[in-house]
Amino acid sequence: MLSIGVDIGGTKIAAGVVDEAGEIIAATTRSTPATDAVLIEAAVADAVAELRAQHEVVGVGVGAAGFVSADRRTIHFAANLAWRQHPLADELERLTGLPVIIENDANAAGWAEYRFGAAMDASHMLMATVGTGLGGAIVLDGNLVRGSAGFAGEVAHVIAVPEGQWCGCGLRGCLEQYTAGTAMVRTAKSRASAGDPLMGPLVQAAGGEREEIDGPLITRLAQQGDPGAAELIGEIGAWLGRGMASIAALLDPEIIVVGGGVAAAGELLLGPAQEAYAESLTARSHRSLAPFVVASMGNRAGIVGAADLAR
Amino acid sequence: MLSIGVDIGGTKIAAGVVDEAGEIIAATTRSTPATDAVLIEAAVADAVAELRAQHEVVGVGVGAAGFVSADRRTIHFAANLAWRQHPLADELERLTGLPVIIENDANAAGWAEYRFGAAMDASHMLMATVGTGLGGAIVLDGNLVRGSAGFAGEVAHVIAVPEGQWCGCGLRGCLEQYTAGTAMVRTAKSRASAGDPLMGPLVQAAGGEREEIDGPLITRLAQQGDPGAAELIGEIGAWLGRGMASIAALLDPEIIVVGGGVAAAGELLLGPAQEAYAESLTARSHRSLAPFVVASMGNRAGIVGAADLAR
Amino acid sequence: MLSIGVDIGGTKIAAGVVDEAGEIIAATTRSTPATDAVLIEAAVADAVAELRAQHEVVGVGVGAAGFVSADRRTIHFAANLAWRQHPLADELERLTGLPVIIENDANAAGWAEYRFGAAMDASHMLMATVGTGLGGAIVLDGNLVRGSAGFAGEVAHVIAVPEGQWCGCGLRGCLEQYTAGTAMVRTAKSRASAGDPLMGPLVQAAGGEREEIDGPLITRLAQQGDPGAAELIGEIGAWLGRGMASIAALLDPEIIVVGGGVAAAGELLLGPAQEAYAESLTARSHRSLAPFVVASMGNRAGIVGAADLAR
Amino acid sequence: MLSIGVDIGGTKIAAGVVDEAGEIIAATTRSTPATDAVLIEAAVADAVAELRAQHEVVGVGVGAAGFVSADRRTIHFAANLAWRQHPLADELERLTGLPVIIENDANAAGWAEYRFGAAMDASHMLMATVGTGLGGAIVLDGNLVRGSAGFAGEVAHVIAVPEGQWCGCGLRGCLEQYTAGTAMVRTAKSRASAGDPLMGPLVQAAGGEREEIDGPLITRLAQQGDPGAAELIGEIGAWLGRGMASIAALLDPEIIVVGGGVAAAGELLLGPAQEAYAESLTARSHRSLAPFVVASMGNRAGIVGAADLAR
Repeated sequence: MLSIGVDIGGTKIAAGVVDEAGEIIAATTRSTPATDAVLIEAAVADAVAELRAQHEVVGVGVGAAGFVSADRRTIHFAANLAWRQHPLADELERLTGLPVIIENDANAAGWAEYRFGAAMDASHMLMATVGTGLGGAIVLDGNLVRGSAGFAGEVAHVIAVPEGQWCGCGLRGCLEQYTAGTAMVRTAKSRASAGDPLMGPLVQAAGGEREEIDGPLITRLAQQGDPGAAELIGEIGAWLGRGMASIAALLDPEIIVVGGGVAAAGELLLGPAQEAYAESLTARSHRSLAPFVVASMGNRAGIVGAADLAR
Repeated sequence: MLSIGVDIGGTKIAAGVVDEAGEIIAATTRSTPATDAVLIEAAVADAVAELRAQHEVVGVGVGAAGFVSADRRTIHFAANLAWRQHPLADELERLTGLPVIIENDANAAGWAEYRFGAAMDASHMLMATVGTGLGGAIVLDGNLVRGSAGFAGEVAHVIAVPEGQWCGCGLRGCLEQYTAGTAMVRTAKSRASAGDPLMGPLVQAAGGEREEIDGPLITRLAQQGDPGAAELIGEIGAWLGRGMASIAALLDPEIIVVGGGVAAAGELLLGPAQEAYAESLTARSHRSLAPFVVASMGNRAGIVGAADLAR
Repeated sequence: MLSIGVDIGGTKIAAGVVDEAGEIIAATTRSTPATDAVLIEAAVADAVAELRAQHEVVGVGVGAAGFVSADRRTIHFAANLAWRQHPLADELERLTGLPVIIENDANAAGWAEYRFGAAMDASHMLMATVGTGLGGAIVLDGNLVRGSAGFAGEVAHVIAVPEGQWCGCGLRGCLEQYTAGTAMVRTAKSRASAGDPLMGPLVQAAGGEREEIDGPLITRLAQQGDPGAAELIGEIGAWLGRGMASIAALLDPEIIVVGGGVAAAGELLLGPAQEAYAESLTARSHRSLAPFVVASMGNRAGIVGAADLAR
Repeated sequence: MLSIGVDIGGTKIAAGVVDEAGEIIAATTRSTPATDAVLIEAAVADAVAELRAQHEVVGVGVGAAGFVSADRRTIHFAANLAWRQHPLADELERLTGLPVIIENDANAAGWAEYRFGAAMDASHMLMATVGTGLGGAIVLDGNLVRGSAGFAGEVAHVIAVPEGQWCGCGLRGCLEQYTAGTAMVRTAKSRASAGDPLMGPLVQAAGGEREEIDGPLITRLAQQGDPGAAELIGEIGAWLGRGMASIAALLDPEIIVVGGGVAAAGELLLGPAQEAYAESLTARSHRSLAPFVVASMGNRAGIVGAADLAR
């Protein structure tokens, strides 16, 4: 039984036909047409039409950045697109003639890791996606946690530091302000600006322009053995571990999957996370510790997860 | 279909026959025989025998303070009793000849509120029990969240303040250190010791002995309109609201039920909690706010919840 | 014995002849010529020349925003002007033929309050200037505290919240991020953005544009009785009180003078500050509490303080 | 010109004749007679009589743990003795016939370091005494900072963590709760209790009894190269550095002297302190960093400082 998964990103719409083993057997892409809802829907429908011309599919799952209603039919609010309480599933069903469900993109990716990726042997999973920002997904006893109205899984906005750093969401001290690429880059620039010699190689690698330091550069230097870059990644790793430990007090996961661009740093991120997790988990002498593992589905996760949820 | 619920407390074992409407139709109690596991099991079996002599029951549910394995058969660790990895369900089945399940007492009480009490119209519930300490239970989509090994629901040990107050669990800054009776009493004594005039009526009501101030006294004075006592309760209410908002970012509950001794203060606790929750919840302009409501099952919750889980 | 005080601001150079009672008996101004050091010095010299043509003076004191060397002759670093290790006193002595000393502008203003203003009866004073940012000055036993190299008095950069809000200085959690106009405005905008009804009158007074909310508007509405604006001011007042209590553990002041634009809010700022101070001061049952009072010298403080220090 | 210094400790009264070079040329001790003020005064007078029988002295300086009035004549409050607003200088002058001044013991020790010890080449000094608790002394421009009523120098009670660990003083989050022997021991016990393998050697060295772990044991193991013990000392070192950086924003010291039992750990404490100081000091790219150095006067500091202040 095949289904189609669609991942609507800020610049690109990626779609694929997914089989029951989580493999993408056909794929296509479209550019994301700015922020016009009608054009986006048309582009999605067009990609779906192309794919179903070759494969028989039972439905379509669509992942997008935003809050999706608990029935998976309406987008409450999208981060980068103009949708507000938008009946996206209805519109796409009208255009494609197929059953459609929508899911938050981090949830879709998390579901793929649970079903076919790094957590496929587990039934309780936390996933944290550490990229520019921080995403998350929660699977408990085989169920994706969506909450009463679809707002669940926002690990980014657990408060890590009362009265801490302002977050774009309007709160202070959200975990995302301590364990994501943006936080790491800000720390790097600040330390460079204060003349910290450990930041020297980073500034040099940025062509002498400390404002040019970015997350991929830090990750690359850390992988090449630069101690300053490794320290920056270790710091967000430690915050990740502390944040996950707080969440684990509530949810007792079996495994913690870490995805996103910064996860490319591997043990440089996961080692400090695992250590801080062990130090910050209640009742740790009475239980086994969930391992931190790197996500294994890569960019395919969004498509595969959305498609699987559509079955 | 009737079942028996048993609530093993530190001083008393309370048992009852519970019907499908959550009513206790027969009840009995035993003293808790110190910390001897064999004697406790015998007392439970004795109480069960008394009750089943009059009513036909399908099974027994037992609630106890401690960590219970995910299959509800073994106690990993009990707070006040001598059990460590103890196969309590097996022992009780042998003694009673009935199917037995075990559950953490806060989970049992939370389940009762979800099934028959304050959250009976909801499917996603957070429960916080604010007594001397802080207990919790989580129901998502009608399922009690128990975690991969039974350690879930520990709202007490979500970190509220990094590097904050030492907790008995060995961590610093656990939510329990900010929103429970012990925290409230400590603040009251400290303010009294510093000569804070707002604490005057409390000290007077404690017979002039500030060391005699306790949680029930603070609650009583607050209910009588004393502003100092009300401020103390409001402060732990605000921390409760902030803590629940962090958890709601993850779990998106429909309702938040507050039980425990301090909940007797009603709006003095819940008002500040609700206000702080609204101020601390991410994406709050895009969603409705879960209401804070007082638990309605009282002391019966433990028996009723355990019995219902046994069916 | 008369002296001249000069206050070099970002847009205006204000100068005056000051007598021994702290009165300005003649005054003049010049525009600040952008950031050209030579032109600024020429403008200062020109203003001094105008004033000394009418009055016999013994020296010149110059206040400027920046770090001034302990011998009061060199500007280490100026916030808004292009000076770095600049021998300003030497240059001005050459141009004016008078003895010249330099002082940090907040220190100069604090000295004026100590000598002739709100703290004239005290010998140990803390001053906090709550404007867009947070300034400070310390007088102990009649001496202005300048530190080993002139960097003392930076109350803005005492850490109020570990891992807190990033500060322009490159650190996290500086007091200035919690008790200054910028912090207050940011909170107001964030609450307005989240739809907080208490912010309604402020948004309305800002012509419906929440981005137009600024410090003076908040102060004005608070003075007119708006509860939302009063709450915003009270919040930074509470942080001010906590910060001053930490400093008082070190320095045991007799009086705390509060200046700057937000001090126009009077008791709305000082009341919460005084209350939080009392709650946050160690050994408070063994000592009297320093009162918080509003600065009394107004805009004249910079000129008067600099002139007095030049005698 | 000689003077006598007296150090009233909880168990012992130590007195000595001190010359102008800070040398103790004669010494004696008495047991501290419990908490009876009259007996303590008699013992001090007796020790003074013994010493002046051999040397001509101009006065007596007495150091004691407690708050001493700004005129150095009255003890507001003593930590371990029964004095409250006690006119100790008057009493001792009556008994000895010599001029007497009193000083807080940490201030006396700090003064000795400034005059004859680790800070003898500086004029602006911070001193932190890291023992069981945390003591402090401040010298600015050659003057010991005593504050308006004698309460200055309490570095222990600068707030390091808002809403942090309760302190014996009645506040939460005082620096002493993060950088003193008691804090270090508590962390060690907690980590040992959670089964942290890094704590293994400490527990073993404590004879297998983790409750027997104390500060001197941790220091000794750290000096022998044990990584767990070194980590514990490094952690309080980092907090010390952060705390001193906050204070340096206010006072701009030239040197930071570290005394007390934990200072025996040397670079294991001072290295992390110096590093955290550099990372936490505002405007650090514009100024030189005060070095952290170990106190050099040892146990003599109290006697020498008190004697010198009496001249």
